[in-house]
Amino acid sequence: MATAPPIIILDHPQMGENIGAAARAMLNCNLTALRLVAPRDGWPNERAETMSSGALEKIPPVQIFETLQEAVADCHYVYATTARLRDMVKPVFTPNGAAQDCMARAGKGQSTAFVFGGERAGLANDDVSRCDAIINIPLNPAFSSLNLGQAVLLICYAYQSTIDQTKAKSLPTGDSHPANHEAFANLMQRLEDKLEDKGFFKSDDMKPSITRNLRNTLSRAEMTEQEIQTFHGIISVLSGSKDSA
Amino acid sequence: MATAPPIIILDHPQMGENIGAAARAMLNCNLTALRLVAPRDGWPNERAETMSSGALEKIPPVQIFETLQEAVADCHYVYATTARLRDMVKPVFTPNGAAQDCMARAGKGQSTAFVFGGERAGLANDDVSRCDAIINIPLNPAFSSLNLGQAVLLICYAYQSTIDQTKAKSLPTGDSHPANHEAFANLMQRLEDKLEDKGFFKSDDMKPSITRNLRNTLSRAEMTEQEIQTFHGIISVLSGSKDSA
Repeated sequence: MATAPPIIILDHPQMGENIGAAARAMLNCNLTALRLVAPRDGWPNERAETMSSGALEKIPPVQIFETLQEAVADCHYVYATTARLRDMVKPVFTPNGAAQDCMARAGKGQSTAFVFGGERAGLANDDVSRCDAIINIPLNPAFSSLNLGQAVLLICYAYQSTIDQTKAKSLPTGDSHPANHEAFANLMQRLEDKLEDKGFFKSDDMKPSITRNLRNTLSRAEMTEQEIQTFHGIISVLSGSKDSA
Repeated sequence: MATAPPIIILDHPQMGENIGAAARAMLNCNLTALRLVAPRDGWPNERAETMSSGALEKIPPVQIFETLQEAVADCHYVYATTARLRDMVKPVFTPNGAAQDCMARAGKGQSTAFVFGGERAGLANDDVSRCDAIINIPLNPAFSSLNLGQAVLLICYAYQSTIDQTKAKSLPTGDSHPANHEAFANLMQRLEDKLEDKGFFKSDDMKPSITRNLRNTLSRAEMTEQEIQTFHGIISVLSGSKDSA
């Protein structure tokens, strides 16, 4: 099902630099619908274009509104990003919670928007009351001020990381292939034989636990076939043998 | 158990503004250990202090190193943040995955660090190979460039949002209390009675479903006791009665 990504609305933004940074952060995170309510320095804005690193040329034209009420008119659910919690009874989301909520709404055909207040005073209480929920970014309470561009980046990235399906951890091996257990066992056997030849094992009692530890150490490296070959070469060179490489 | 938060290391940073933005982002996210490897313009740096919005005065003194190798010497596990994946067989984490991994390591007494390359060229392959894992920030592949300060913010926030236990959604009611079901049922009964008096229900057949819908509509508002009282007042005023408020 086609889903509409959330709209970013900057209410009374002041500095073009921050509008540009917001656009850049949006496009970084696959968001492209930007609306401005009464930008102080008008629109278009040269400083915004410079700071956007080309993002403003790549997204659809920015839409300009005179009031927040008009800017959210076609939205079904609107999240107000505020630096401090207001004395209002209104649902509060974390950025990740809001991102998941807006994904679910988009899946049902609802249009959503994230609203950010201007640099000087943030959103007026009246404007917050026109929104359906508040997003509060959980930061260090003793040092929580973000600039506008940074706030937009965190919210957009919360959205992007919700849609991104990349695994939390992976081990890309490029053109090489992970070695199978036989290749690894052959390497370990050869290493063990060479060490035996050179008198590495002081006593036969110690040998099993030492080889077990070596195997554990090197298996954690999750070697590729190429890396196994490299280690065979190392063993050959160190031991002065040429019987394998 | 006491856990050491990760260290942030900027390798060959160029612009003081970005170092300052990084410090600000760190303190926003409760991180305070900053190390610099060979900062281009030396240290201290006035522009960094201005851009940090006071963060550099609040965190412990920044530590300066000549090489990345020295900067990571006391660390147990080091994550390299890179804009592009290298042709290296090395574990790759998302920011959230790395944050969880470093939390787990901290719980075992391990010291961790996140390394960021300089503005011009990022981290050299040699430096990446000195790290244990790579962090790749999953962004729009067609527009993925972040500036240094923004990259630090995203990684620090991934850490902060991992330690933050704030629920994804909440409804803070301040000094007021959520109304209980009796208070809500009384309000609905009074509304229904008034509507009945005023001839709102065209037929007795429709009344049950209409009142059920009304109850569903207003119950979604999860009203507080104060809001219930306000609605009683509204009913009184609209109906011209003074029998309750």
